[in-house]
Amino acid sequence: MIDSVLTQLRDDRQAALDRLFALLRIPSISTQSVHDEDCAKAAQWAVDDLASMGFQAEVVKTQGHPMVFAHYPGPGRHVLFYGHYDVQPVDPLDLWDADPFEPRMDQDDTGRPVIRARGASDDKGQLMTFLEACRGWIAATGSLPCQVTVMLEGEEESSSPSLEPFLHDYAERLKADLALVCDTGMIAPRRPAVTTSLRGIVMEEVTITAANKDLHSGMFGGAAMNPIRVLSTIIADLHNDTGRITLDGFYDDVLEPSEAQKASWDALGVTAETLLGPVGLADLAGEAGRSLLEQVWSRPTCDVNGIIGGYTDEGTKTVLPSKASAKVSFRLVANQDPNKVAEAFRAHVRARVPSDCQVAFEGFGRDPALLVNTDLPEVGLAQAALSEAFGAPTVLIGCGGSIPVVESFKRILGMDSLLIGFGLDDDQIHSPNEKYDLESFQLGTEAWARLLGKLGSEG
Amino acid sequence: MIDSVLTQLRDDRQAALDRLFALLRIPSISTQSVHDEDCAKAAQWAVDDLASMGFQAEVVKTQGHPMVFAHYPGPGRHVLFYGHYDVQPVDPLDLWDADPFEPRMDQDDTGRPVIRARGASDDKGQLMTFLEACRGWIAATGSLPCQVTVMLEGEEESSSPSLEPFLHDYAERLKADLALVCDTGMIAPRRPAVTTSLRGIVMEEVTITAANKDLHSGMFGGAAMNPIRVLSTIIADLHNDTGRITLDGFYDDVLEPSEAQKASWDALGVTAETLLGPVGLADLAGEAGRSLLEQVWSRPTCDVNGIIGGYTDEGTKTVLPSKASAKVSFRLVANQDPNKVAEAFRAHVRARVPSDCQVAFEGFGRDPALLVNTDLPEVGLAQAALSEAFGAPTVLIGCGGSIPVVESFKRILGMDSLLIGFGLDDDQIHSPNEKYDLESFQLGTEAWARLLGKLGSEG
Repeated sequence: MIDSVLTQLRDDRQAALDRLFALLRIPSISTQSVHDEDCAKAAQWAVDDLASMGFQAEVVKTQGHPMVFAHYPGPGRHVLFYGHYDVQPVDPLDLWDADPFEPRMDQDDTGRPVIRARGASDDKGQLMTFLEACRGWIAATGSLPCQVTVMLEGEEESSSPSLEPFLHDYAERLKADLALVCDTGMIAPRRPAVTTSLRGIVMEEVTITAANKDLHSGMFGGAAMNPIRVLSTIIADLHNDTGRITLDGFYDDVLEPSEAQKASWDALGVTAETLLGPVGLADLAGEAGRSLLEQVWSRPTCDVNGIIGGYTDEGTKTVLPSKASAKVSFRLVANQDPNKVAEAFRAHVRARVPSDCQVAFEGFGRDPALLVNTDLPEVGLAQAALSEAFGAPTVLIGCGGSIPVVESFKRILGMDSLLIGFGLDDDQIHSPNEKYDLESFQLGTEAWARLLGKLGSEG
Repeated sequence: MIDSVLTQLRDDRQAALDRLFALLRIPSISTQSVHDEDCAKAAQWAVDDLASMGFQAEVVKTQGHPMVFAHYPGPGRHVLFYGHYDVQPVDPLDLWDADPFEPRMDQDDTGRPVIRARGASDDKGQLMTFLEACRGWIAATGSLPCQVTVMLEGEEESSSPSLEPFLHDYAERLKADLALVCDTGMIAPRRPAVTTSLRGIVMEEVTITAANKDLHSGMFGGAAMNPIRVLSTIIADLHNDTGRITLDGFYDDVLEPSEAQKASWDALGVTAETLLGPVGLADLAGEAGRSLLEQVWSRPTCDVNGIIGGYTDEGTKTVLPSKASAKVSFRLVANQDPNKVAEAFRAHVRARVPSDCQVAFEGFGRDPALLVNTDLPEVGLAQAALSEAFGAPTVLIGCGGSIPVVESFKRILGMDSLLIGFGLDDDQIHSPNEKYDLESFQLGTEAWARLLGKLGSEG
């Protein structure tokens, strides 16, 4: 049975690529309201694609961007597939070699064929591997080997405000035996992986206001408080000299990875040279005494994502600005409470704001980290399916990023998730010239096809 | 003689205001190349104005914005008047109550009539007080009581790159007994002042680059260096807990004001409440243990004028940015070497940049501070002229700002300067809604008219 599906997928590769390109052409940037209609368009495109292969599919309105909801009946296990059709902003646009929304075939530095576009990897290319696997099964056999529900959201890059209301409203129809989430990556080309831990995230924006207007630095400099100086001190004080974060109680609930876990990570051969070398860096910048994978998979972090204040145009202006602001995010690990971290951050800031300044906060999301239960039989099935598709053993890895939906599935629907994806570290997601390896797209599709078969026959 | 001049000036007040408004309507922002033609237009306007009252006037081309050069013969002393026709940028434009280049009569919070426009105080309103005084003398008496050369530059707000070449080229024609520089202020309305010290300035822009592209903070956060964190630490480290600047040797050459000087400043009644209260602040932010006027007139300072890095638009982006930059300026006091300060700043930065990051500097000006020789007889004549015009005693004060031309006049032309101006602390120069008191404009004009008379008859 699987052989005919694989043959069908290989025969249909050009058409599959055309379908992906059509989706990539839609600039569905969820954080920028000017792209609201593009998000709606991308949702409709996905519904049409699912309906064309026989799914019962609908666009579900929300307070924000719509959900794509689709169902296909089948025997045995019921799985819920999750992906997101929204993408990150594209700035700085001048660093792109071509239009981010005009997808094209290209090569990476080593000559491997890649698909270039915003969203090629995160997450349109990834979600299409699953949709194409379903299309292959239906085309080759007339049906799916298990019962499949598909849910694609349009607010993953903007903190998913409509996700939980939707999970509550559609709980009965969404509740499956297992969720399949496709938004993670592999260790390297042809080194497939199943992800078993995700970091959580807290996102905050802080604005410091001093004088009620911009001042002349000659008349007031030395007498009036400068909010950029206040903000810089706040940011500088977030880390100590060994790279540890200084918030009160920040590490209290952090669990240490086991020695066995650390040993298995060390065996993966991911080093500062392999991860940082390609982006022009050499030195690990995190906590002293921690390996790279420990830093990225098992330790919480703090980053300033943006900062602005005063005069930033051409030339100079001897101004003492009225205000300055920064966007600060924390990546959390399992067992940390996002609310506790957010409040510790706000307390850290308030303690450093002089009485003469005002401080304002805006929160953009507080999501805990997650550990996948590796005792689930489906973890083994997934490893087998990926190993067959890529011709190499499949390892269990962590992920430094956040996929809050996994925690929501567990809490609201009581459902475990399997995290499978085919992204690579050099995909430049969230950066200019994002790409997805053609092989990730094609073998990823085959991996899902094999896993659907195993989930069916084992059910 | 002076009485007929004053009568003439009072009869001509509306026309004088119309002339000032015409100049204020020209958006001569020297730091923004889109306004190059406006600068040329402002220079031509001033030449036409000077020629209309009988000056031999010309626009002198430079490598940058043109100089206005004009001469009127007369007996006795030869004075060189200096002002600048360029203005600061207007951003943030949304904080202006009206078009910055559509001047209008308005009232301040206390009901005093003011002229509102970019440049109303700095420096178009000020320079026009002198031009109107000349016009009054010539209209009333047919001539000027002393020999007057006028020089107006168009690059004061952009570090005056063409100033010194011009001083060298025109040295013979510019060399006078004394320069009159109109770019300073009074203590308060009807409390006239002659300024006897100016701070110098060093302006630097620093850019820190880490990775060669923007990175995803989930994949790289905790492992890759964040340039905003590096830059914040550099800025935070510029001051210690008592508000002192930490650069190596920064205070080595700083001279302490005398006890007499400090006592005379204390007597002026300028407090945190009077200076900072109107801009919404209460606390002195400078060096601990120094009075406000000590901080602003006699102590060097450091301010960050602007900072930018990463994602600064609507919403969030979990990016670990490639680079971040800041514009940093230092106000210097007499006896400090600007080159030494600039190099100490660059050394401070380099010492804090991790080996993984690159740092780039751009310098925008290095000008020393200046002390005026208060033994000059003209200082006393100026005090008398201002006291008569404003009906109140004229005090000798310091100025926290920088007027580098004064040092250039001394070094290149061997000429002392007299710093006289009618600006007020609440003029909002370099800020939105800049204004100039109508009384500053009208009584300032009369003060110059009186001083011209004294410089003539005493010569």
